[in-house]
Amino acid sequence: NVGFGSGNQVRSISVEALKPNDSFPRRHNSATPEEKTKMAEFCGHSSLDSLIDATVPKSIRIESMKLPKFDEGLTENQMIEHMKNLASKNKVFKSFIGMGYYNTFVPPVILRNIMENPGWYTQYTPYQAEIAQGRLESLLNYQTMISDLTGLPMSNASLLDEGTAAAEAMAMCNNIQKGKKKTFIIASNCHPQTIDVCETRAGGFDLKVVVADLKDFDYKSRDVCGVLVQYPGTEGEVLDYGEFIKNAHANEVKVVMASDLLALTMLKPPGELGADIVVGSAQRFGVPMGYGGPHAAFLATSQEYKRMMPGRIIGVSVDSSGKAALRMAMQTREQHIRRDKATSNICTAQALLANMAAMYAVYHGPEGLKTIAQRAHGLSGTFAAGLKKLGTVEVQGLPFFDTVKVKCADAKAIADAANRSEMNLRIVDQNTITVSFDETTTLEDVDKLFKVFACGKAVTFTAASLAPEVQNVIPHGLTRQSPYLTHPIFNSYHTEHELLRYIHRLQSKDLSLCHSMIPLGSCTMKLNATTEMMPVTWPSFADVHPFAPSKQAQGYQEMFENLGELLCTITGFDSFSLQPNAGAAGEYAGLMVIRAYHLARGDHHRNVCIIPVSAHGTNPASAAMCGMKIVSVGTDAKGNINIEELRKAAEANKENLSALMVTYPSTHGVYEEGIDDICKIIHDNGGQVYMDGANMNAQVGLTSPGCIGADVCHLNLHKTFCIPHGGGGPGMGPIGVKKHLAPFLPSHPVVPTGGIPAPDKSQPLGTISAAPWGSALILPISYTYIAMMGSKGLTEASKTAILNANYMAKRLEKHYPILFRGVNGTVAHEFIVDLRGFKNTAGIEPEDVAKRLMDYGFHGPTMSWPVPGTLMIEPTESESKAELDRFCDALISIREEIAQIEKGKADINNNVLKGAPHPPSLLMADAWTKPYSREYAAFPVSWLRSSKFWPTTGRVDNVYGDRNLICTLLPASQVVEEQAAATA
Amino acid sequence: NVGFGSGNQVRSISVEALKPNDSFPRRHNSATPEEKTKMAEFCGHSSLDSLIDATVPKSIRIESMKLPKFDEGLTENQMIEHMKNLASKNKVFKSFIGMGYYNTFVPPVILRNIMENPGWYTQYTPYQAEIAQGRLESLLNYQTMISDLTGLPMSNASLLDEGTAAAEAMAMCNNIQKGKKKTFIIASNCHPQTIDVCETRAGGFDLKVVVADLKDFDYKSRDVCGVLVQYPGTEGEVLDYGEFIKNAHANEVKVVMASDLLALTMLKPPGELGADIVVGSAQRFGVPMGYGGPHAAFLATSQEYKRMMPGRIIGVSVDSSGKAALRMAMQTREQHIRRDKATSNICTAQALLANMAAMYAVYHGPEGLKTIAQRAHGLSGTFAAGLKKLGTVEVQGLPFFDTVKVKCADAKAIADAANRSEMNLRIVDQNTITVSFDETTTLEDVDKLFKVFACGKAVTFTAASLAPEVQNVIPHGLTRQSPYLTHPIFNSYHTEHELLRYIHRLQSKDLSLCHSMIPLGSCTMKLNATTEMMPVTWPSFADVHPFAPSKQAQGYQEMFENLGELLCTITGFDSFSLQPNAGAAGEYAGLMVIRAYHLARGDHHRNVCIIPVSAHGTNPASAAMCGMKIVSVGTDAKGNINIEELRKAAEANKENLSALMVTYPSTHGVYEEGIDDICKIIHDNGGQVYMDGANMNAQVGLTSPGCIGADVCHLNLHKTFCIPHGGGGPGMGPIGVKKHLAPFLPSHPVVPTGGIPAPDKSQPLGTISAAPWGSALILPISYTYIAMMGSKGLTEASKTAILNANYMAKRLEKHYPILFRGVNGTVAHEFIVDLRGFKNTAGIEPEDVAKRLMDYGFHGPTMSWPVPGTLMIEPTESESKAELDRFCDALISIREEIAQIEKGKADINNNVLKGAPHPPSLLMADAWTKPYSREYAAFPVSWLRSSKFWPTTGRVDNVYGDRNLICTLLPASQVVEEQAAATA
Ligand SMILES: Cc1ncc(COP(=O)(O)O)c(C=O)c1O
Ligand SMILES: Cc1ncc(COP(=O)(O)O)c(C=O)c1O
Ligand SMILES: O=C([O-])O
Repeated sequence: NVGFGSGNQVRSISVEALKPNDSFPRRHNSATPEEKTKMAEFCGHSSLDSLIDATVPKSIRIESMKLPKFDEGLTENQMIEHMKNLASKNKVFKSFIGMGYYNTFVPPVILRNIMENPGWYTQYTPYQAEIAQGRLESLLNYQTMISDLTGLPMSNASLLDEGTAAAEAMAMCNNIQKGKKKTFIIASNCHPQTIDVCETRAGGFDLKVVVADLKDFDYKSRDVCGVLVQYPGTEGEVLDYGEFIKNAHANEVKVVMASDLLALTMLKPPGELGADIVVGSAQRFGVPMGYGGPHAAFLATSQEYKRMMPGRIIGVSVDSSGKAALRMAMQTREQHIRRDKATSNICTAQALLANMAAMYAVYHGPEGLKTIAQRAHGLSGTFAAGLKKLGTVEVQGLPFFDTVKVKCADAKAIADAANRSEMNLRIVDQNTITVSFDETTTLEDVDKLFKVFACGKAVTFTAASLAPEVQNVIPHGLTRQSPYLTHPIFNSYHTEHELLRYIHRLQSKDLSLCHSMIPLGSCTMKLNATTEMMPVTWPSFADVHPFAPSKQAQGYQEMFENLGELLCTITGFDSFSLQPNAGAAGEYAGLMVIRAYHLARGDHHRNVCIIPVSAHGTNPASAAMCGMKIVSVGTDAKGNINIEELRKAAEANKENLSALMVTYPSTHGVYEEGIDDICKIIHDNGGQVYMDGANMNAQVGLTSPGCIGADVCHLNLHKTFCIPHGGGGPGMGPIGVKKHLAPFLPSHPVVPTGGIPAPDKSQPLGTISAAPWGSALILPISYTYIAMMGSKGLTEASKTAILNANYMAKRLEKHYPILFRGVNGTVAHEFIVDLRGFKNTAGIEPEDVAKRLMDYGFHGPTMSWPVPGTLMIEPTESESKAELDRFCDALISIREEIAQIEKGKADINNNVLKGAPHPPSLLMADAWTKPYSREYAAFPVSWLRSSKFWPTTGRVDNVYGDRNLICTLLPASQVVEEQAAATA
Repeated sequence: NVGFGSGNQVRSISVEALKPNDSFPRRHNSATPEEKTKMAEFCGHSSLDSLIDATVPKSIRIESMKLPKFDEGLTENQMIEHMKNLASKNKVFKSFIGMGYYNTFVPPVILRNIMENPGWYTQYTPYQAEIAQGRLESLLNYQTMISDLTGLPMSNASLLDEGTAAAEAMAMCNNIQKGKKKTFIIASNCHPQTIDVCETRAGGFDLKVVVADLKDFDYKSRDVCGVLVQYPGTEGEVLDYGEFIKNAHANEVKVVMASDLLALTMLKPPGELGADIVVGSAQRFGVPMGYGGPHAAFLATSQEYKRMMPGRIIGVSVDSSGKAALRMAMQTREQHIRRDKATSNICTAQALLANMAAMYAVYHGPEGLKTIAQRAHGLSGTFAAGLKKLGTVEVQGLPFFDTVKVKCADAKAIADAANRSEMNLRIVDQNTITVSFDETTTLEDVDKLFKVFACGKAVTFTAASLAPEVQNVIPHGLTRQSPYLTHPIFNSYHTEHELLRYIHRLQSKDLSLCHSMIPLGSCTMKLNATTEMMPVTWPSFADVHPFAPSKQAQGYQEMFENLGELLCTITGFDSFSLQPNAGAAGEYAGLMVIRAYHLARGDHHRNVCIIPVSAHGTNPASAAMCGMKIVSVGTDAKGNINIEELRKAAEANKENLSALMVTYPSTHGVYEEGIDDICKIIHDNGGQVYMDGANMNAQVGLTSPGCIGADVCHLNLHKTFCIPHGGGGPGMGPIGVKKHLAPFLPSHPVVPTGGIPAPDKSQPLGTISAAPWGSALILPISYTYIAMMGSKGLTEASKTAILNANYMAKRLEKHYPILFRGVNGTVAHEFIVDLRGFKNTAGIEPEDVAKRLMDYGFHGPTMSWPVPGTLMIEPTESESKAELDRFCDALISIREEIAQIEKGKADINNNVLKGAPHPPSLLMADAWTKPYSREYAAFPVSWLRSSKFWPTTGRVDNVYGDRNLICTLLPASQVVEEQAAATA
């Protein structure tokens, strides 16, 4: 009674069908082939390819792109295997190198719930405060922590690294002194990379940097704007800078101190010593070393200089109902407003890492941090005592916190011996070694070190046996007396459950890519795929010190080589530097390459930089940092660069022309037809073309900066190449260059670097970032993205991104004017919706639309940039048609709401747009005084009924906050009062 | 100008201070030493120890517990190192073993956002539907997927494993035939573990199992209740059961088919062939093999037998506003209601894994699944073709889906050769091998296999070269024609962004431990620490086949040995079985051990099981499954077992007494003083004491089942030992036994097992679970918990759990009657709040209070169990005082709300409790007709203002749903209609 089917189904099998079926591009790119055709047809084209042909100028199209590796693209599983293989080539030795990078335990609850959680890592900079109160609170915690530990009242919400933070502080000193004092002295006890970054940066400001021993500081010239000292010093010494600072101030010299957060739990804070600015890194507060980054750097200063601070600053304000609410403060300092007059060019910073560090402080609390510090201090003391007992080497006499300096006969021999025990020491010079201790050091480690330093002698004691004899040696006058982290937030969440819930409570207030598309023009908020993110938290990538011997980091090195090669193919360049750790840093680095090139050719006078008015503010800000003179050129009626004006400007400045900065496709979302001409004009007039790579997502596989004619370009890897924005960083901004510029790519004082692939000769411009390869830990994200997409997948991504933008523009054009288009009526990968007319007809501004979009569950597009009064929408290739349609439906519905005002059916001052966003507290208040209905305010479209993301505050008042600036946590007492008031 | 502090701070350093500072217990246990004392004082005791002394009876107290390993507890970091070391001892060979376990790619987006996400893994069974709509939807997806693929309309929401699912189906056949036909025939083409589990299970039902070749099935006895066949068979063959089933039905025999979900995408579904019940495992749908589990098993059947189905079933109903809403259906079938008459004893199932499998289907969609199936089929066909070409072995002639059966001269030699290439094959017998292909197999793998099977001969072809000649060989009549997974949910979320958002959308509807405490009495919802969870998703634990040679799983084996030893110390037992994969399975296994013991002594008649009326329903249900006769004993006024009644019952049943089942501390939350007497009475009358270990969290380090006098006990590792509940599973229910019972612990037909540590002799009772060590993959959680807590930390956990319960009881006693207490007025680790009085005074029932608690952001306590009309609260040691206070404040505030009704100030039928929960849609509706205010409904306490978890539906109507049973997704058309209606 058991049989077989009568006939077998006979169908032969293709090899293709037996290959892995789980290809990555279909998970990343949104549209299916059928959808693509339908959408292209909707846009008036017979196919996607015909739409693309009509959009990208023929003159710059490349036939096809073929990656030198991974042409076909790996599957996710193959990718993980490949990365495991690379990971296995990294050897994680225990680091005692110090120099600003320390081992740390990332609390697993933070690792899993922040660093590995898309709810935290996929967000954008909190420009839309009402749907970002969670990370705004966390960043306020960060600022409070920095302020408390440094003893200075004002802190920003992170900078890129300690080296650039010091350079930013140097620039502040220059500005504070109104550019009238042109010398900056750096103590030789600063980390070498800090010194080099400052020296390089000084070039553009025309500052003279003097590196000197502290005792040789000399202010007699009256030309010194500021000084930089380190506390504790790079070789460990803890000095009392009290008198030193008094003296500097007496000479009207500003004092910048580079410091260490862990040390500051035990040491008198720089603010109390009188420092004007304090900088440093928050890395050792629970952020992995990651072969150099990303980590959050900090900068704190006094009230006096707050408006001169670089970077983003979170401040307390009130919302429409008078409740305390957070948002970014004093944005008028920043480059998108002040352009070349900005306090700095920094945009993307290190928000995610700042949040990790802040949570680390929340988890440990002040007592916990102090315990960690005392342990590291105690272990270093024990080590020093043991060395004295051993007598094989000489221990430095100065007080230290966690780093012991040792004089010895043969530093290399000792370091080699340590290597054989899988430990890395710092070789300062032939006869000097330092050994830095940290949270992860154990008594057993100290015993192993004793063995190394015994040089064959028997060790007759152990760290444990020595400990009771050892004494804490922080100088009495430098022992910290003042309390810190007294706010309840730092004293409540010390169990895992409490921290878990605090993290999730904050997360629940923030809209991220886990909720809906974030169509920020120029920001490219595409998928950050899990497979791309996974290697980032593998210990073999995460736990490598940036200055570990290269042979221990062969996995990293191989990835750098591969990535450099891949990026060269993608961009049409010859060499890449992976050092700049954000787009702005890339711009600066790229311009500095151009500057170095001109200088090398004796063209010292070439300092004019032409920048279209449509450029991102960071372009003029970067050019200003390179000491360039900015010449603006306008745009024509169609939004394109006015080529005749440009030609005139180039010719007029022919003698001094250094560079053009140009974004392509333009910041207006258009593939300008004349781009090749533009490049030619610049070259003909002796200039170099700097391309801003923010819009690279519209180029990959279709054209390239190299093909277009650019000489150098940065890539925001956190845009086109999938590094998540992390709520305001991390990012990466490597630069690619043509052959003639390759020799000038940056190097590094500790680990010499240069272009990848390496050019024949090398004349590095200096050092751009604190770490040799910038934020190396997140490079696997971009690398895996490229490798999994393959040549075809990447090209298809660009096409789909363009398709998605055109589809949306088409759907919206009947409802809103679309501002700029290419010659064939298409847009690039983003487009501008013009709202300027509504100001008159309905009193509506872009902000009103953006805030109302929150009620529809969406993050607003880029507001009023590059054109005031508009919204710029960039959907990316990762958004499905369904999501695009929902977003369009929302905007169309909002258009109808505006029409109600225009028709006089809704009040011009009191309508559903002006009232937006509508948080639950407002919607379910007993009293409802709005002229529109609650339900309509909350659920204007039906899909919101099944699931809705709720804004947590009413519209936040920016002006109030800037007038009443508060940038740290309110004292607990005040919070309680406010809560009581809110409940009453 | 740089100096030192005048004097150094001199303080010597203790060795203690140099040891690692990041101990785990302080992250897990909530209270600080100061808090503990204060809370104890609040409870009227001078210290925590005095409170404990007053609570735990002296007669059973142990002095102290000392773990044989990890006495001091490892730090989290040390733990990870230890686990890495174990992991490195597992060798992940590529498995071709099949037998119900296959390699699969866990889509990374599911891995990270479900399996590694506390928002999904920390929830409890969705008893409170209004705050569980997310996972209820996902489980409905699961049921729909099972129903579609099997071709039967009813599916449950998972069972423990394929073996027990088959046994449950066997029990259904028995029940369908009203227990009148006592033979069950199992085809020999079923997996050996399935056969053994059924054979063991049959014992308790007094069923006779006949294992026979299909062609030898014989129904002439008229005593056959059902048959079990497998499709495809364990050795790969695909048979057409159409005629077979007709014949069985003609003989009034029910047909159970074990099947494979992936195969069913290509094969005619069992439902269409006429099967009555279909069982199987969803493991290969994106759930790692994990050395045996956890995975979701399934059981589907026809409408006719739906009320006989075991396990949880999700159904569609409506909420208070008439909107569709989900909840668990037909709970009246389950053991907490029907006790020994229940359809099964199952409680904890495999919800998390069912959700993963369902999401896998959502991600791939019907087309994607079919592609995966066709690939596996094509590769197996290619392999078979190659073997035929090679001619070294003989390939089975029957059609197959993914498993090729091979006859050869020396199976072991071939398997050994495969091992040398890091591949595992199945040795069926000396001359038979099977090779199973799956999603992860590649053409290269097939080539490697050719090499192995070539036995030294040169292979002149490759898999790729063969492929075009190969033909699909599914018999025509068995080719699936019917569509499946047609619902939009399975056809919309195929990009990573879309799935990510779908997962997060569902997650946002569910309250979990990420939000607030879930104080479910008897459930022990303590912290599931990240460090405990991390090793679970390491490939070296996740990717091991349960039947891989033990020498490849040395890391696992070492952990089992250690864990067995640790659990023995903790429980005072001599040996453990890690096989039962839930508490209920443990109960059943434990009782079967007792049964085997009596049988071995010739006491065949001993079949009476005494069970107190206060016992959890699963106890009588389990006893019934062992064929035991249940004798109930009552409790006295204080809630304790009535010892005199018990004595009488024991004596009356002296001759036939098999066992007592007792929970300790009692399900009433009291340490009964007479427990040692009770054990003695049972022993004196020839019985064995089975202890239900659900309340083990109140014993660890203070007393133990062994010390109290129990002979066997299960441990719900998902309670006391930190395995997260996963929204209704996974769990683990290992059993510990005294020495005399150790020989009877279960074994396994494929990998012989037994007690850990191993007893001298072995007389295993049979097989309890499909996998030798149950859900091995989650054992690292309990293991790391114990190892990190150390002896002191564990003991402190028990004390703190007791303290927290007493603190809450004390705070609440002025507002609510506390039902039972121990002799000194204290409660154990949980306590009962008596609400029975409010039924009369205010019309209020426990459900009203539980639903109102949602408005306060809390999950209700256990409702109406063990005493109807009450709530049972268990805070656990992981909840901070602040959290306990918030929960008490909420309950006290609710008491005030009840008082308003009592005083006539609130309407008895229309008040804030009866109206609860209040979802946003209700609170912000334009029309508000409630007699209380919106704001009060939403924000009854101030802390909710800063952050609130919103229920997503109004109160769900259970009765409506059971009357109109719908247990799969509504057709899309209906959904659209409903949405339209809701919006209108
Ligand atoms: C056109 C353009 N250039 C430069 C930048 C600055 O890049 P980053 O934020 O990586 O520093 C941005 C940032 O959005 C940009 O849009
Ligand atoms: C007292 C008691 N016994 C047994 C069980 C059943 O355990 P499991 O759900 O692990 O099968 C439970 C479940 O909560 C319980 O509370
Ligand atoms: O699962 C329970 O029945 O508690």
